[in-house]
Amino acid sequence: MCGIGPEIIVRAHLAGALQRCLVVGDALVLRRAARLMRRRADVPEVVIVRLSSADEFDTVPLGCLGVIDPSDVMARRPGHGDLSSAATSAAAIAATTGAAATGGADASGVDPPLDELPVGRVSRAAGLAAAAAIRAAVVLVQRGHAAALVTAPIHKEALALAGEPYPGHTEMLADLAGAPGQPCEVRMMLANDELKTVLVTVHCALRQAIDLVTFDSVLATLRIAHASAALWGQPQPRIAVAGLNPHAGEGGLFGDEEIRVITPAIAAARAEGIDASGPWAADTVFMRARRGEFDIVVAQYHDQGLIPVKYLGVEQGVNVTLGLPFVRSSPDHGTAFDIAGTGRADPSSLIAAVEMARRFVAARG
Amino acid sequence: MCGIGPEIIVRAHLAGALQRCLVVGDALVLRRAARLMRRRADVPEVVIVRLSSADEFDTVPLGCLGVIDPSDVMARRPGHGDLSSAATSAAAIAATTGAAATGGADASGVDPPLDELPVGRVSRAAGLAAAAAIRAAVVLVQRGHAAALVTAPIHKEALALAGEPYPGHTEMLADLAGAPGQPCEVRMMLANDELKTVLVTVHCALRQAIDLVTFDSVLATLRIAHASAALWGQPQPRIAVAGLNPHAGEGGLFGDEEIRVITPAIAAARAEGIDASGPWAADTVFMRARRGEFDIVVAQYHDQGLIPVKYLGVEQGVNVTLGLPFVRSSPDHGTAFDIAGTGRADPSSLIAAVEMARRFVAARG
Repeated sequence: MCGIGPEIIVRAHLAGALQRCLVVGDALVLRRAARLMRRRADVPEVVIVRLSSADEFDTVPLGCLGVIDPSDVMARRPGHGDLSSAATSAAAIAATTGAAATGGADASGVDPPLDELPVGRVSRAAGLAAAAAIRAAVVLVQRGHAAALVTAPIHKEALALAGEPYPGHTEMLADLAGAPGQPCEVRMMLANDELKTVLVTVHCALRQAIDLVTFDSVLATLRIAHASAALWGQPQPRIAVAGLNPHAGEGGLFGDEEIRVITPAIAAARAEGIDASGPWAADTVFMRARRGEFDIVVAQYHDQGLIPVKYLGVEQGVNVTLGLPFVRSSPDHGTAFDIAGTGRADPSSLIAAVEMARRFVAARG
Repeated sequence: MCGIGPEIIVRAHLAGALQRCLVVGDALVLRRAARLMRRRADVPEVVIVRLSSADEFDTVPLGCLGVIDPSDVMARRPGHGDLSSAATSAAAIAATTGAAATGGADASGVDPPLDELPVGRVSRAAGLAAAAAIRAAVVLVQRGHAAALVTAPIHKEALALAGEPYPGHTEMLADLAGAPGQPCEVRMMLANDELKTVLVTVHCALRQAIDLVTFDSVLATLRIAHASAALWGQPQPRIAVAGLNPHAGEGGLFGDEEIRVITPAIAAARAEGIDASGPWAADTVFMRARRGEFDIVVAQYHDQGLIPVKYLGVEQGVNVTLGLPFVRSSPDHGTAFDIAGTGRADPSSLIAAVEMARRFVAARG
């Protein structure tokens, strides 16, 4: 909420991209962003309508943006009302601002109201608000009030200050969507119009990522990628697996993970009917996928997969969590503290994330 | 010589891109490639003129391609004749085919003539020939017969079969150009029209690369990149340094190499007047450089640097070795055994390598 999240939500709404979207967050923070956009760009101020229950979603006037506070979500227990509203708003998409009333106070005393927190600064209060918005949005989806979840960027340090043990959204959602103590096995996918990359490992030191590239983790990634591709209407995707080492190990000259781990995992996946190939040299496999040779590239670690997706510009990139029991996407950029509050933030990636969520919901039927 | 090297040399010559280039390699292998190109494309067969000495370079008839055999280079000792020819052919560029007569035999007996070796197969004889061509080309440059060296791709396994201890061209050239036992400190740069990437570590397992990212190696990379940029007319380049870990370590959450090693090396470089910045998150720093924010990106390991350079297609990418006492470039693709002998190989990257070598020689004056 102290980054560009509220601004890009307001801009996406102004662009007409948030129809049938319900924002989970703090209405005052969004109104601050709406005033900012009115001052910066010659546009009418967006009217933010705070709902006291997701049941009210269909009452939001045309052209207005509906917002629900996490506290209002969590105060209610599911009942018959929820089930009936689920039927009417099944196409709704919950979008988090990372802004929510939480009542949390930091060590120095009482936190200021959320809409008075300075933009562009890490704060515990903002981290607490972001975490509460994510939790409430998951509840909305689980209760059937929304068909998919689109998350705005969070600041990982703020999340850590708030005492959350998660390095990012992905891990938090896997925990929230799983059974107690049994997080879902999920994988992060980065996608744009020309490339879909699914990551074996994500947010950890590179040295640790190498240790986490195992037969089981590679095979699980292949299974999740294969099963998820039905989401975008590709039941038998051609999956390329990138090597971990330069030149995919060059026959063992540059590391043996390809021989010990990756090649056997690919063979096991193929035995299950998954169209997996590789390990391919990472420096050209993404270019080959971009040209149409593969539908999905499985990358072994964060930067290997994200560098090519972001290289042409982050605006069109979308982050999708595969393996959850619901559709979840997000922009593939961060909170951009350096430009937060200037009104210059580009909503393209958020818009792309909403559109991809809509497509996946439609393909799932 | 069993890959696409001879074919792309012939095609580059047909495209008019090899003027004042002297090819170091086996004339019969090149003639085989010239016949292939004539059959595959409706073009005249290129006339290959074998020189017995670099002194004869200016006698190559217009439109023909001059080739010198490594054995003819190594048989001669430098003398007055060499010095005078250096004056007349200083703009010449030596290009290796990876093909040369060596007399080497593999374990099964006598090797066949080089132009009868099957294309698309790893062989010790081809590895020996490639190594001999590289050695001879370095000698030609050192004697002043050529102003720069452009190398065609070699197959690393063939090189290993030939008993060469080098994982690639770069390490071999650093050894050949240095004093005995003291290889030059070199760095590999990958460049295309929109991105220049210099690598801290190159051909080793990813796990080993992490160990090789040290204060000294990062600082040396920054010094070499800074000093070399004068080659392309940029005496004060803006150098971005990529982090090793995701999000450049996210303040220590994902690894501490940024804090322990990379940040201090950047500070030391800045104290020397080098315009270095970072460490930046690797997943966006290349995109930022592409947009013009930086002139050079220092990447910590092979795939981090090569994925973005190659993503838009390898045709225009050029590999330049920085830190040698002469200009050396090469295409940024491999031997492409899968299409060798079909006549379909694209000479664009070789042509770009020759053109970049010419520009660097001209900028050096």
